[in-house]
Amino acid sequence: MGQITVKLIQTPDDIRDMARGAVFLGAGGGGDPQIGELFLHNQLTHGRTPNVVTADALDDDAFVISIAGIGAPTVLVEYLVSETHLLDLLKKAEAFFGKTIDALISAEIGGANSMFPLALSALTGLPVVDADGMGRAFPHLEMTTFSVYGAKATPAIVTDELGNIVTLDVLTDRLAEETLRPVVGALGAMVFSAIYPMSGKFVKDHAVHGSVSQSLAIGRCIRQGREASEDVFATLLEYLNRPVDDRHAILLFDGKVIDVSHETRDGWHWGKVTLKPLDNGPDEFEIEIQNEYIIARKNGQPAALVPELITVLDRETAEPLTGEMLRYGLRVKVLGYSSAPIMRRPECLEVWGPKAFGLDMEFKPIVA
Amino acid sequence: MGQITVKLIQTPDDIRDMARGAVFLGAGGGGDPQIGELFLHNQLTHGRTPNVVTADALDDDAFVISIAGIGAPTVLVEYLVSETHLLDLLKKAEAFFGKTIDALISAEIGGANSMFPLALSALTGLPVVDADGMGRAFPHLEMTTFSVYGAKATPAIVTDELGNIVTLDVLTDRLAEETLRPVVGALGAMVFSAIYPMSGKFVKDHAVHGSVSQSLAIGRCIRQGREASEDVFATLLEYLNRPVDDRHAILLFDGKVIDVSHETRDGWHWGKVTLKPLDNGPDEFEIEIQNEYIIARKNGQPAALVPELITVLDRETAEPLTGEMLRYGLRVKVLGYSSAPIMRRPECLEVWGPKAFGLDMEFKPIVA
Repeated sequence: MGQITVKLIQTPDDIRDMARGAVFLGAGGGGDPQIGELFLHNQLTHGRTPNVVTADALDDDAFVISIAGIGAPTVLVEYLVSETHLLDLLKKAEAFFGKTIDALISAEIGGANSMFPLALSALTGLPVVDADGMGRAFPHLEMTTFSVYGAKATPAIVTDELGNIVTLDVLTDRLAEETLRPVVGALGAMVFSAIYPMSGKFVKDHAVHGSVSQSLAIGRCIRQGREASEDVFATLLEYLNRPVDDRHAILLFDGKVIDVSHETRDGWHWGKVTLKPLDNGPDEFEIEIQNEYIIARKNGQPAALVPELITVLDRETAEPLTGEMLRYGLRVKVLGYSSAPIMRRPECLEVWGPKAFGLDMEFKPIVA
Repeated sequence: MGQITVKLIQTPDDIRDMARGAVFLGAGGGGDPQIGELFLHNQLTHGRTPNVVTADALDDDAFVISIAGIGAPTVLVEYLVSETHLLDLLKKAEAFFGKTIDALISAEIGGANSMFPLALSALTGLPVVDADGMGRAFPHLEMTTFSVYGAKATPAIVTDELGNIVTLDVLTDRLAEETLRPVVGALGAMVFSAIYPMSGKFVKDHAVHGSVSQSLAIGRCIRQGREASEDVFATLLEYLNRPVDDRHAILLFDGKVIDVSHETRDGWHWGKVTLKPLDNGPDEFEIEIQNEYIIARKNGQPAALVPELITVLDRETAEPLTGEMLRYGLRVKVLGYSSAPIMRRPECLEVWGPKAFGLDMEFKPIVA
């Protein structure tokens, strides 16, 4: 199977592929894209599809904004998205920022927030930039290339389905995080934000590029691998390892889940997953969850480390699984996949390297 | 001593009187007015005094807003107020509301928030309405006559000293409370708000009138009572009981503090104060604190009940004491004083009667 060419999200398969790829890139977190997926399917039945463009297509002075659902992943899945709410957010955001929004972007391509800019694009025709701020999922607002390179999450506006509006303009994205989190808790319902106001030039210079099409391609690759009755993992690894960028994918472990602990604390999902080989061999594999999979250890030794992506997939279908989906007895394969090169720069690793997650170790990239 | 005529706050004594009266009306809570008092003293040295007007002076379509510090009383006292911050809040509030602010008002005359509209008035010349939203202090945003009669706390804007800005436009004042409280916690510093946007007509119809001049008069009465070497409590009770309104003041207890429990939980001040007579006679008197003194019991029987004001004063100087000032051994007199008549209407008692504070009993007014 050769290179997969991705253009647009135009069919039910494309939407499913996009969502599947977003779970893969979510690296265990980011929330379930299903509500966004259902929304896009519904738009498609009305002939409306999102309009994805590369960052090159933006004017330097274009006004670009992220559209994101905010809340712990466990909350996100319980609510549906309404057209009215998304359109109302757009209208209120333009009033708040005092200018017309030219393009939308995901701050986080991994998980649920991959879908909401696409949903609003389908509704309005506004372009979605084929890029995001991390090429994966992360638990904090300051963990975006946008933040590292000088754009801020705020000024930002958040609205809920009921008509409540909160705006923020705070000095740091860490403070935005600390302020927004309890606000979302108080509002209680599905909260959407227009956040990370940026110029077209800034997005061109500092986003993680190609991540929408990558998400779509990963999802498509898995589907096509299944349909061709090939070894879907061989297909997927071949695709991820194609020599177009400095990224590598490797099989970290093949086995079954023998223990899972989950805990929701302060709105975050913490957990640990333990795996053994199917033949009950002596190897032990462990994955630690802080919303996302942040470290995988094989027999006690680090096998992959944040920000490299650790992804757990069903070992038959290669369906990517979020941390919350992991249950005793599941048979899975675990892949390690390089983060985007920009994500491994020293200034970036300061914000989301192992130490940022309380791990007392240096970053080590995944190598082929 | 006859009726006290109050015009303006123009001397150091006036400022001290105003603050003293605000502690009296704070009924144990509302925070220490000292920071606002210091600020007003400083303005006075520059020849600037606040401009207090009666509600009659407002145009019906005047745009009136409350200026309030937000946070638990224990936090309020730790920070100073800067001119820059107050002026910046005014500027940002006018931009947020999209109109010129014509007059300021306290939402809560009891405690610290009596002073901030006066402070901003001294700085800008903007008039402060001689009125507030409760004639005392209360712990929640929805506990104002403004809220009961259909004005809302939001849209509102909050800012801190560092330049952080949060705006809120939420459906209920209860939700405003639940949203603002953690935001203030996250910001951490002194947070001011422009809140309860109202028309002049609304303020005329639904505010608790005369509460600024009342606060000043109570403070002045106590000072003048001391200076005249009269029985200051007799002077104060005579003043409070003058037959100008349906309000009565009585001495509830005279004794010493024998036990105090304080607890700060979820940003609120909870506590219980136990008093005995100076001669260790058999009577026992107990006051329950939920930020404010909400119920006084003598020998187990209710002696005064929220929203009637319970005030604890030093038994020599008649200096009013907040709940946080109460310590073992203090010799005090406890007064009960009727709340403003508007505060005792049935629709009001639903929001701040005994049941709203978890007391399973009917309201009983203080009688002469």
